[in-house]
Amino acid sequence: MSTAPVVLGIDIGGTTTTFGFVAPDGTCLAETELPTRASEPLSLFMERLTERIRDAFAPISVGHDLKGIGIGAPNADYRTGKLVNPPNLKWGSNVDLAGLFRRAFGVPVAVTNDANAAALGEMAYGAARGMEHFMVVTLGTGVGSGIVVNGEVLYGADGFAGELGHTVVDPDGRVCGCGNRGCLEAYASAGGLCRTFFSLLANHDGDSSLRAVPFSGLSARLVYEAARQGDRLACAAFEETGRILGIKLADAAALLSPEAIFLHGGLAAAGNLIFDPARRSLEKHLPGMSRQRVKLLPSGLGNRSAAVLGAAALVQRHLEKEQPPGFTTPSTR
Amino acid sequence: MSTAPVVLGIDIGGTTTTFGFVAPDGTCLAETELPTRASEPLSLFMERLTERIRDAFAPISVGHDLKGIGIGAPNADYRTGKLVNPPNLKWGSNVDLAGLFRRAFGVPVAVTNDANAAALGEMAYGAARGMEHFMVVTLGTGVGSGIVVNGEVLYGADGFAGELGHTVVDPDGRVCGCGNRGCLEAYASAGGLCRTFFSLLANHDGDSSLRAVPFSGLSARLVYEAARQGDRLACAAFEETGRILGIKLADAAALLSPEAIFLHGGLAAAGNLIFDPARRSLEKHLPGMSRQRVKLLPSGLGNRSAAVLGAAALVQRHLEKEQPPGFTTPSTR
Repeated sequence: MSTAPVVLGIDIGGTTTTFGFVAPDGTCLAETELPTRASEPLSLFMERLTERIRDAFAPISVGHDLKGIGIGAPNADYRTGKLVNPPNLKWGSNVDLAGLFRRAFGVPVAVTNDANAAALGEMAYGAARGMEHFMVVTLGTGVGSGIVVNGEVLYGADGFAGELGHTVVDPDGRVCGCGNRGCLEAYASAGGLCRTFFSLLANHDGDSSLRAVPFSGLSARLVYEAARQGDRLACAAFEETGRILGIKLADAAALLSPEAIFLHGGLAAAGNLIFDPARRSLEKHLPGMSRQRVKLLPSGLGNRSAAVLGAAALVQRHLEKEQPPGFTTPSTR
Repeated sequence: MSTAPVVLGIDIGGTTTTFGFVAPDGTCLAETELPTRASEPLSLFMERLTERIRDAFAPISVGHDLKGIGIGAPNADYRTGKLVNPPNLKWGSNVDLAGLFRRAFGVPVAVTNDANAAALGEMAYGAARGMEHFMVVTLGTGVGSGIVVNGEVLYGADGFAGELGHTVVDPDGRVCGCGNRGCLEAYASAGGLCRTFFSLLANHDGDSSLRAVPFSGLSARLVYEAARQGDRLACAAFEETGRILGIKLADAAALLSPEAIFLHGGLAAAGNLIFDPARRSLEKHLPGMSRQRVKLLPSGLGNRSAAVLGAAALVQRHLEKEQPPGFTTPSTR
């Protein structure tokens, strides 16, 4: 009996890990989510994840052949296959992600950072098909970006290009998880939105349905739900988050001249609450001749995970042609 | 008698225009400077420039054959050969620079912006030889940047990538020549340095040898000379200019991960006065894992004009192989 080839795409986020088995045409089978539990040791995470992967593959294993694994994860190094000091995960400074998965499943593994994976997914199956210059910005636990120039993901000299989340909003501003001050990630992530909300609460006397919620109990979801119900301070928090995001997107667009910028991740799911102020601010701060030339768009993949599809597209591509330095196969390691 | 091929490289700056005849090995003959006179009509500038070019070529014309012209100019569009709303020149909104020179000299013409030309010069003949990822920042009348990724100048979707000068230092900051507020160009250009000096003069009571100089009489050169003689406010103006520049260089490095950033232009000639504070600030604001990985360097071309050499390298390259969309030859137009 013939089997159809699939690759496993895995997106490891600061809060949630998602995976799915992706066919060459982009169909995603058995997509599964589990909590990442960032404070848990890596070994426990690997145990939970590999078990869930085997469980998910079991029912489809008869008709499908697993050919490779692509992984998107924060601070993952495409060139070495390692996870280097991921700011929102406490797994040590140099985790050989590609090696771990290669040993666990005995198939080739390719690794890239989560935002690059999202860009690859958007380019392979989403709204960036055919675009030579674009950028995907992930707004979640952290803020990342995957930059595509001349149809290729930009890795740069050290392999870590695309650190939009650590560009500077205010050199004297909020302390960021990375140790610097005033990074975009401290403003335009889920936690950044909450901090902006609390800062507004502290500085204004407007009423808010969230006055009774403690700092430790607040989540981006609560701010979103309050804003949807018209809570003025919650709406203002989105407005301010979008304004700040738009300035840094304009900076990136001035340097890169992308055709489009795609917003992905939890905060992007807030729709117009974040897109409207971000678009106004982007347009205002773009260099004159670039105005109205840079589209700010949601993912073209709808509810499908761009990073899962992109991680799958990454390994698929390497199975078909080149192999990156960090690409590990059972025979090479 | 056999003649040696040369190409003409021209660098049109906001204040000074420089040209030279460049041999395939990078030797530059008859390098000449003339004032640009930004407020003068384009026709007068063309008249003066073509006359000077013919004068300079006359003595070497017997042994040399002019094969092509490469031009670097602010806001020049590589793809169309046109000058689009150059912010520091009053020549109208769409000057067909390639066509003008093609008609005047009857040879193929290639055009790019001045900062891209400087990057091409650094890559062909300077300290960026062999680098795949770097950036040249020009600090003069304006602030520009030429970005090289994967060994190619980055043009982006609209052809105008590399607008570092119009990234945002402060959204409520100084009015910039482009109409936006708070652009880097309003801080890290020659004029920006003067504005910072006057702002320090207004806000501090320290003594300065430049207290008697009116706003309209101040130049970056005067601030430089005062700083060299230990004038504390002049030194502080360089310090502040470098600090601001370093933040925006860190932003660009976070996105692009260059191996090196080269500072060119008049302000870069101030040496340690600008390099030291810029380097400190760049290092402070880089994402943690990129620290000490991005070199901040002066041009490797010394007193030779990177933009003249780069403009020459551009047309040389196109004579040898491809032709860009904006490349005009006598036969095609």
